Amino acid sequence: MARVVVDVMPKPEILDPQGQAVAKALPRLGFQGVTEVRQGKRFELEVDDSVDDETLTKIAADLLANTVIEDFTVRRIDA
Amino acid sequence: MARVVVDVMPKPEILDPQGQAVAKALPRLGFQGVTEVRQGKRFELEVDDSVDDETLTKIAADLLANTVIEDFTVRRIDA
Repeated sequence: MARVVVDVMPKPEILDPQGQAVAKALPRLGFQGVTEVRQGKRFELEVDDSVDDETLTKIAADLLANTVIEDFTVRRIDA
Repeated sequence: MARVVVDVMPKPEILDPQGQAVAKALPRLGFQGVTEVRQGKRFELEVDDSVDDETLTKIAADLLANTVIEDFTVRRIDA
């Protein structure tokens, strides 16, 4: 078994209304000095050792991310 | 300026319907060997160097995570 993390973030050129809402709320709540917030998704998968990196990339691209508007990274965090 | 990543995941004892939906969809789509999926959130913040770790933890706990049902981690990825 391996644990795999897939991070999915909006592409830099895509507006991110959720992140902007957080960024605007922070000064109102007394937190200064945060200049940008981007919000994305994090998936943690438990996979059999039979699942190779190519399959993981396909799962991320087909099912976890919308590659038109999102970038993703796949990494194993233990074997 | 520093870049900070806050990962927010549902606590282990909390049901995660989004993750379960992904886990159930995978075999239907021809992907075998993924035994569990948990879905959470990833925030990327740009912060001034004046923002200390205590403040970042407070931002994460108060605004980014719902600590009743979610755990979070805060880490700086460059200085």
